[in-house]
Amino acid sequence: MARLYQTRLHTGESLAAGVAVTLPKGQAHYLRSVLRLSPGDRLALFNGRDGEWLAEISDLGKALALVTPLEQLRPQAVEPDLWLVFAPLKHARIDYLAEKATELGVSALCPVFTQRTIVSRVNEERLLANAIEAAEQSERLSVPEVMPARKLEAMLADWPAGRRLLVCDETGGGRPISEALADNVSGGNAVLIGPEGGFTETELDGLRKLPFVTAISLGPRVLRADTAALAALACFQAIAGDWRQGRPDFRGWA
Amino acid sequence: MARLYQTRLHTGESLAAGVAVTLPKGQAHYLRSVLRLSPGDRLALFNGRDGEWLAEISDLGKALALVTPLEQLRPQAVEPDLWLVFAPLKHARIDYLAEKATELGVSALCPVFTQRTIVSRVNEERLLANAIEAAEQSERLSVPEVMPARKLEAMLADWPAGRRLLVCDETGGGRPISEALADNVSGGNAVLIGPEGGFTETELDGLRKLPFVTAISLGPRVLRADTAALAALACFQAIAGDWRQGRPDFRGWA
Repeated sequence: MARLYQTRLHTGESLAAGVAVTLPKGQAHYLRSVLRLSPGDRLALFNGRDGEWLAEISDLGKALALVTPLEQLRPQAVEPDLWLVFAPLKHARIDYLAEKATELGVSALCPVFTQRTIVSRVNEERLLANAIEAAEQSERLSVPEVMPARKLEAMLADWPAGRRLLVCDETGGGRPISEALADNVSGGNAVLIGPEGGFTETELDGLRKLPFVTAISLGPRVLRADTAALAALACFQAIAGDWRQGRPDFRGWA
Repeated sequence: MARLYQTRLHTGESLAAGVAVTLPKGQAHYLRSVLRLSPGDRLALFNGRDGEWLAEISDLGKALALVTPLEQLRPQAVEPDLWLVFAPLKHARIDYLAEKATELGVSALCPVFTQRTIVSRVNEERLLANAIEAAEQSERLSVPEVMPARKLEAMLADWPAGRRLLVCDETGGGRPISEALADNVSGGNAVLIGPEGGFTETELDGLRKLPFVTAISLGPRVLRADTAALAALACFQAIAGDWRQGRPDFRGWA
């Protein structure tokens, strides 16, 4: 879909009018050698705290870029508190999942190892890099947090009070997702997706007994793990999240 | 997610108890050399008309397999009448889109060329092959139809009476998708997704004027074309399609 800003970068630095920000080597290289920008050219910056800023390149070297925020384009907005808890997938599919989940507005990516998870390691840096790129492209004002990979049982043992966990139950036992999402929950939500081989019976039985779990169903067809994740996230945003208000038209400022 | 049938194949042949079906070379090779099955082994068959059948391999050669349906596992079900009309994407993304859209239950894949579509050809056979594989994996009882690629304006000029077209409008002008889907429509539905560069203003203006079009919004973030397609299809099935009933538990028969 059309993007409104040609160049849009995430930074960890604070953003305020006239206070120059240093961008590291990777971003300097991208601005200089990939986009062929020069001092005086403009871009958008965001950091997940100070909203989005129009900024001007003040200096552009091989190792560093100096960029000065000029004016705030959008204030920081409150975003839905929605985690994606997922059994890691193989390379191309996990990259894709991080990209899509970021576009769909998750607040945290939480890889967990279940009994049938085949992938034994998660490259959290790569997950974060994919999430940052997708946040830059999608005009998000934040980047999802990437949690360290851990065992599912450890994560459940530590589960935060008041957060609902929507478990995608591929055996058909759950409530239809539209019905489950109609119950509004105030303390944050999470979607849990099993590995490609599914949860074990023991895992599912254990999950169903937890007071914060709602088992949900995603219809009569068997979905791949990545499809199920994206479908559940899209339904969440449409029914209970920030898609209910529509998209502001930003073309005014461009 | 877990699959209940180990082997599940689509065929164009009619399916009835005791009436042997011939499977062509590709499927014979798959059964014999990939899965290493032999006469007497069992699999599931479906053709989109006669439901799903448990069948036994009667003969298995290099060029042909003979398979005999034993009993019907599931009757043919009525599936939602939902087209995906989309501007073709580059290779990996169009494969992925065909796979995911099939899992999400589309009845037809309709590639259309819009003004900003960069891809100039569509391999319809490859689209269909991806759709068949996804239908086999997802326990669908049918394979989506793949329509020949054509210009968007030609498709609109020929639009079937009574079918609603939900246009994903990335400028933010549309109705929130959950609201639009709450209006039930009897004559079938279609989702339209533009190319990676978005629709042109002229296209969007033209679309908005058509009586069968509802422009919809998919929230505040900019979604890639493939994400938008999958998100809209998932929301459709959850709110207006066949996810409202949950998934029957088929484990009884296995």
